Amino acid sequence: MEMGIVAGRVTATRKDDNLVGTKLLITQPIDLNGAPLNAQPIITVDTVGAGIGEKVIFVRGSMASRSMSNKDSPVDAAIVGIIDSLEYEDLKG
Amino acid sequence: MEMGIVAGRVTATRKDDNLVGTKLLITQPIDLNGAPLNAQPIITVDTVGAGIGEKVIFVRGSMASRSMSNKDSPVDAAIVGIIDSLEYEDLKG
Amino acid sequence: MEMGIVAGRVTATRKDDNLVGTKLLITQPIDLNGAPLNAQPIITVDTVGAGIGEKVIFVRGSMASRSMSNKDSPVDAAIVGIIDSLEYEDLKG
Amino acid sequence: MEMGIVAGRVTATRKDDNLVGTKLLITQPIDLNGAPLNAQPIITVDTVGAGIGEKVIFVRGSMASRSMSNKDSPVDAAIVGIIDSLEYEDLKG
Amino acid sequence: MEMGIVAGRVTATRKDDNLVGTKLLITQPIDLNGAPLNAQPIITVDTVGAGIGEKVIFVRGSMASRSMSNKDSPVDAAIVGIIDSLEYEDLKG
Repeated sequence: MEMGIVAGRVTATRKDDNLVGTKLLITQPIDLNGAPLNAQPIITVDTVGAGIGEKVIFVRGSMASRSMSNKDSPVDAAIVGIIDSLEYEDLKG
Repeated sequence: MEMGIVAGRVTATRKDDNLVGTKLLITQPIDLNGAPLNAQPIITVDTVGAGIGEKVIFVRGSMASRSMSNKDSPVDAAIVGIIDSLEYEDLKG
Repeated sequence: MEMGIVAGRVTATRKDDNLVGTKLLITQPIDLNGAPLNAQPIITVDTVGAGIGEKVIFVRGSMASRSMSNKDSPVDAAIVGIIDSLEYEDLKG
Repeated sequence: MEMGIVAGRVTATRKDDNLVGTKLLITQPIDLNGAPLNAQPIITVDTVGAGIGEKVIFVRGSMASRSMSNKDSPVDAAIVGIIDSLEYEDLKG
Repeated sequence: MEMGIVAGRVTATRKDDNLVGTKLLITQPIDLNGAPLNAQPIITVDTVGAGIGEKVIFVRGSMASRSMSNKDSPVDAAIVGIIDSLEYEDLKG
């Protein structure tokens, strides 16, 4: 999984039937210190109630669909947790 | 998921049986401002009726097949929504 | 999906039982103009009868196995169509 | 699979129901000599009892969920082994 | 699939139950001429009897598990063939 910060929201009226009712959030990947990485923000589904500005854990790929009540949803990125805290040693020094 | 803009169309007469009747669109990845990223355009299937020049949400990997009525289609990229609007804060400043 | 040009062939006598009889082609990723990208060629299975020099559509990841009659084949890249023509606008200018 | 070193731990109280009780470790990818790669640390689940500072084997993508007793867990990275030793020849010289 | 050369072996006593008895080889990605690419070696399972120094075909992602007799093995890379020969045209010139 990766860390990100919720940066916004996307509205799409015409969409796949299995995405109807889905909350689509723009998530910016961040490093362990919370700083934005030089990586494109991605569009994630959210089922844990994340809000703008919150630091989250997100999952990529087919397992993202496991977070949905509708397992047929064509999604490849999902917020699966909201980060309380991190403890780590920066091994890259 | 990622954002893109529909840039064209591919015609392929000889193809996998499970792709017959499929609409294959060329989609250019874009950033949050709608500007083309320095990334190769990809070939996406479309089941939401996207047209050339429209900004779309696309999904990569095996979940792309979930957007197809034929779940056996060998596809790894699919347009799953047409973007109406975005609200976001640019965290990369 | 991505575009490529068939550049060669691989022979492997000792291989996974589920790959026996499979045609393994070397495919070079190309851009929309047909020029080779600065990306490694990959080994793709082929079930659509592609020949050396033909421009093809290929799929990556687990969905590549859907193109095989033997769905248990351990393959992560497959040619799924032969390109007749493209119509597109180069948005990167 | 890839090699990494366990660098820390993430706490997330609000999370996907299928992640409750899961141990979330921060893993830094390393090279064959054990030196940190210039790659972002990732968040991995752990079911083999890895501790901070241990060198581990981790798997990415949907197969990471196979390491979980709950196969519905939305995870895309998992520690699946703790490295005792390596024997290899550095082919990049 | 990609090409690699087997460069070594990893020993891990503590590991996922579904990996017990698995042969874990270090595989260095190579180009069509057999020269090591500037890419990290990866850890692959082997079920075709590859030995150190042999040129192999490997598969990444969830399909790697299809090469295992135990389909629940959490693996994301597997050697699926040993290369006898290649015939190709270098399109990158």
